[in-house]
Amino acid sequence: MLNVRKDFPILTKVHNGHQIVYFDNAATTQKPYQVIHAIVDLLEHHNGNPHRGAHVLSIEAGELYDEAREAVRKFINAASTEEVIFVRNTTEALNLVARSYAEPRLKKGDKIVIPISEHHSDLVTWQRVCQKTGAELDYMYLDEEGHFTEEDLAKIDDKTKIVAFAAVSNVFGMKRPVKEIVAKAHAVGAIAIVDGAQSTPHMKTDVQDMDCDFFAFSGHKMCGSASTGVLYGKKAILEGMEPFLLGGDMIEYVKEQSTTFNELPFKFEAGSQNVEGAVALHAAIDYLEDLGMDNIEAHEEELTRHCLEGMKRIPHIHIIGSTDPAEKTGVITFTIDGVHPHDAATILDSFGIAIRSGHHCAQPLGAHLGVEASNRASFYIYNTLEEVDYFLEKLPLVRKQMGFKD
Amino acid sequence: MLNVRKDFPILTKVHNGHQIVYFDNAATTQKPYQVIHAIVDLLEHHNGNPHRGAHVLSIEAGELYDEAREAVRKFINAASTEEVIFVRNTTEALNLVARSYAEPRLKKGDKIVIPISEHHSDLVTWQRVCQKTGAELDYMYLDEEGHFTEEDLAKIDDKTKIVAFAAVSNVFGMKRPVKEIVAKAHAVGAIAIVDGAQSTPHMKTDVQDMDCDFFAFSGHKMCGSASTGVLYGKKAILEGMEPFLLGGDMIEYVKEQSTTFNELPFKFEAGSQNVEGAVALHAAIDYLEDLGMDNIEAHEEELTRHCLEGMKRIPHIHIIGSTDPAEKTGVITFTIDGVHPHDAATILDSFGIAIRSGHHCAQPLGAHLGVEASNRASFYIYNTLEEVDYFLEKLPLVRKQMGFKD
Repeated sequence: MLNVRKDFPILTKVHNGHQIVYFDNAATTQKPYQVIHAIVDLLEHHNGNPHRGAHVLSIEAGELYDEAREAVRKFINAASTEEVIFVRNTTEALNLVARSYAEPRLKKGDKIVIPISEHHSDLVTWQRVCQKTGAELDYMYLDEEGHFTEEDLAKIDDKTKIVAFAAVSNVFGMKRPVKEIVAKAHAVGAIAIVDGAQSTPHMKTDVQDMDCDFFAFSGHKMCGSASTGVLYGKKAILEGMEPFLLGGDMIEYVKEQSTTFNELPFKFEAGSQNVEGAVALHAAIDYLEDLGMDNIEAHEEELTRHCLEGMKRIPHIHIIGSTDPAEKTGVITFTIDGVHPHDAATILDSFGIAIRSGHHCAQPLGAHLGVEASNRASFYIYNTLEEVDYFLEKLPLVRKQMGFKD
Repeated sequence: MLNVRKDFPILTKVHNGHQIVYFDNAATTQKPYQVIHAIVDLLEHHNGNPHRGAHVLSIEAGELYDEAREAVRKFINAASTEEVIFVRNTTEALNLVARSYAEPRLKKGDKIVIPISEHHSDLVTWQRVCQKTGAELDYMYLDEEGHFTEEDLAKIDDKTKIVAFAAVSNVFGMKRPVKEIVAKAHAVGAIAIVDGAQSTPHMKTDVQDMDCDFFAFSGHKMCGSASTGVLYGKKAILEGMEPFLLGGDMIEYVKEQSTTFNELPFKFEAGSQNVEGAVALHAAIDYLEDLGMDNIEAHEEELTRHCLEGMKRIPHIHIIGSTDPAEKTGVITFTIDGVHPHDAATILDSFGIAIRSGHHCAQPLGAHLGVEASNRASFYIYNTLEEVDYFLEKLPLVRKQMGFKD
């Protein structure tokens, strides 16, 4: 197991007499001192508006920003920093692709294919593209455990222009066969857009090996700041796209009635750059790489295996999707007979255990499965087997507190 | 004069043997301990994904986020927090209005009227709206000092649907007659969009008194984080607009082929919320309000008056726009005969003085004035008369170092 708890100040927090057990990592992760210190160091010593001045603070801030971009490039193995665009988060990244790539290109008769399990940010975006362009949004409905079926993959046909999917589902927590689906998309001439929000924090990312056309992730789900995420895109595709937000660093030259735009990656980075967020993401990447992404994946698999084994022994608990730890990251979504997920989360919170309840931003999946709301426990590097045991000890008390006798 | 330097750790920085004199505040401002500590306190004690969980960290983060919104509402005197939308910065705010308000409404025959001095973010955005809708972008060219002329105001005519302008120009540093222009826009049935990036940090803001339809500003130009700004909009107008970014908190209910959206202000806040940035902006507002916005305005006017008087005595210095300190914030844009602005900034940087050089994201103004690039010194609460004297002492050395004999 990893041994990193000393780096995370928030983990000593006591709530209702219990030291907090933070199992809501698929929503957002906690920050180590190394990341917090990187933000403070920037603000106390190097803060300036980058790329806009000939003075020391502007230059230092610019260098830190550029170094962060190179760290991201290396972390996801992009071919060039021109392909690494700083955005706010995965949601903004996907909206950028929808507006600047998809809207101008799709038309009636075209198809966008996505799994029914997609996060709203990777689903409502495509709904709007279809509404605006007349294209059709077609769903892959998956099997009961959450796997792609042959029928699903057959939906990627000659009409398909975009295949979008999460590398790891935020509800099932399952690792998708990314390379296979990307290849399938390319075989019909479609592009493949991978939502990496739930994969990037938990395993090695190699965008060249995946061969995806776009890849998006959020810093805050991997120990970074809530303000910075990344859109990776293949250079040739990015070059052919119109800009998204206009103003500031993305400008080359402005005349009264026309404008030319900056080169990549700046073309997609409007306004003043958020150096704080970039520096925090850089520190988070350094921190995770020191631990080793393979070690992080193994750590989560061990926690998940232990937790699933325990949960299977507790009556009235139903796990959604696959229960094979080898094909999951540390995400376990479940329901408890007779207990509304919100009540379950509130009762567990009284024991200091933080889990998620609700629709997990995936309502079409919930409707399809007939499970409108559920609970989700999700692990990260600082969680321990002892915390899982504590959770397993308290979980049966939820129904007791709700007045059930068995 | 204000006495706040002890609160800003970066101001003790020494560069090239000189304590730094930071005069690039129109680009971005420095952060007091109070703001830095607010970020650290959030990350060490209260970090969670707000509005998405029934556990203590999600709830605490949500409360801090909501409190920040109420602090912004009060600071700009909006009627309701429904009218206060957290965005990344002014640039994103203006792009949001362009995409969600202007693009669906304007058509051939309509006009957008803006001053020639606008920042690219408040200019290229409207260029694109015009390119997409067939509307016309008409400029108010201002007089030599930067004032609106009768001829300018006459451009706001019956064809005009949008009047957009900065409350303070980032080049001239001049305070605009906001209420008068807003009233002129309303008189012809147009809406008024005010870019408050350069006004909000420096003087009292009252959106109800201005009666503007939209108002935008950036946290990082007022001691806050680089990641958070605000779009204010009148409720009735916001309610009639389509969403901008899709996904996350802005969703109400999603079906496979249709979606309903959350109520205001959440409808315009997609993805996971940036609580760090909101908390930093809240702390910055508290800090500025403790000083008093009127005192801040008076402080800057005193620095500007002193600096302008000194600069007028130095030969070969040309100030762009009005030299009346009473109608300016602390922004002085100038050129030096025979010296490229970048060289001037570099030489002053060698004395530890940080000023801006370039086109200040206002190239059409530069082309109109025949001044493609210039220097800009801009002051904030922590600057002092002694720093201005040091700047005035070093300014004549710029031409000497470039080899001029007089």
